[in-house]
Amino acid sequence: MYLSFLKSVKNKELEFITAPKIAKELHIGPTQITKDFSYINIIGKTKIGYETSTLISVIEDFLGYHISIKAFLVGIGNLGMAIIKYNKFNQEGLEIIAGFDIEPENIGRVINDIKIFNIDKFKEKFNETPVDIGIISVPTNQSQNIANTMIECGIKAIWNFSEIPISAPDNIIIENTSIDSGLAIIKWQLNKNKPLIYKNRIL
Amino acid sequence: MYLSFLKSVKNKELEFITAPKIAKELHIGPTQITKDFSYINIIGKTKIGYETSTLISVIEDFLGYHISIKAFLVGIGNLGMAIIKYNKFNQEGLEIIAGFDIEPENIGRVINDIKIFNIDKFKEKFNETPVDIGIISVPTNQSQNIANTMIECGIKAIWNFSEIPISAPDNIIIENTSIDSGLAIIKWQLNKNKPLIYKNRIL
Repeated sequence: MYLSFLKSVKNKELEFITAPKIAKELHIGPTQITKDFSYINIIGKTKIGYETSTLISVIEDFLGYHISIKAFLVGIGNLGMAIIKYNKFNQEGLEIIAGFDIEPENIGRVINDIKIFNIDKFKEKFNETPVDIGIISVPTNQSQNIANTMIECGIKAIWNFSEIPISAPDNIIIENTSIDSGLAIIKWQLNKNKPLIYKNRIL
Repeated sequence: MYLSFLKSVKNKELEFITAPKIAKELHIGPTQITKDFSYINIIGKTKIGYETSTLISVIEDFLGYHISIKAFLVGIGNLGMAIIKYNKFNQEGLEIIAGFDIEPENIGRVINDIKIFNIDKFKEKFNETPVDIGIISVPTNQSQNIANTMIECGIKAIWNFSEIPISAPDNIIIENTSIDSGLAIIKWQLNKNKPLIYKNRIL
């Protein structure tokens, strides 16, 4: 959240930003920000604040942008195609090294230098070149099956773009990313000046 | 964040959840959770916690899931196609009522009951049926132009899926959603048990 906000600040060519300004924009307490930043050894200058570009760079370091991680992508539908073509993954340290699909017309294709294999080959390809992350962008009813295959292979992390969350043992890192994640925030902002519409309820 | 976590809990068929459990999973302090939930008038039962499905329903109410909002979508590439076909928007109260593109082969198509028009028709269609939200899923170099057109028309909110954040006057609600937003979290989790790799730096 900090990172994407700071990048929008940088985009506006603001060289410095203060904790109270970040706090206001992100609806977080300023002391939380100071605490978070001091955890990664960032201390702002009084009245001037933080230098935007250095702050971005330190957060990127902390988040491991400069460590490259390999991934397999399963599901080359519309969203899978958007993921495989996404330009920023390389600079963020994510390298998708193979794609998998079930559609005959997709198998054998090379998209953005990434070859698409039949999903049957997943285990074989994983054994040849183990990856840390399995990305899932298949239809909802297939996502848990694909996750199970990945877990059997010994994958460490699953990044799930399907419409429902998946289950996995506790030792597997699961990140569910949904394209609707911003909608609640927009709707809340559109309605925040209107009378509260939710029912008062005590659970 | 609460909502998507609670849905994964419900998916695991857990009927109740406690604040400390939510706190642990989401890396938030338990008092923050109690505070957030009491803000929307939700009080848990001692030792039992919160009923998952009721909690989901109250948060959905609060976030305006039960208010329907109309949107135009601009850009019918891979990501735009994934957005237009996304099944859950209707249940979340978002109705995309028209799509816009520049590709001749897309114009006139009807996808998921949504008709695609030439981007030249945006202003005309907006005047006929004003919408609250403009969704942008065009290539990076065109996103600011499309945003400007939307703002000229008098749109209230822009949901930007392009790879860079867009600028707008303060009265416009901007939500930048990026498909890479989960990557930092996965990489952090993959690396958190390894020695810290970021450089110690004082800004």
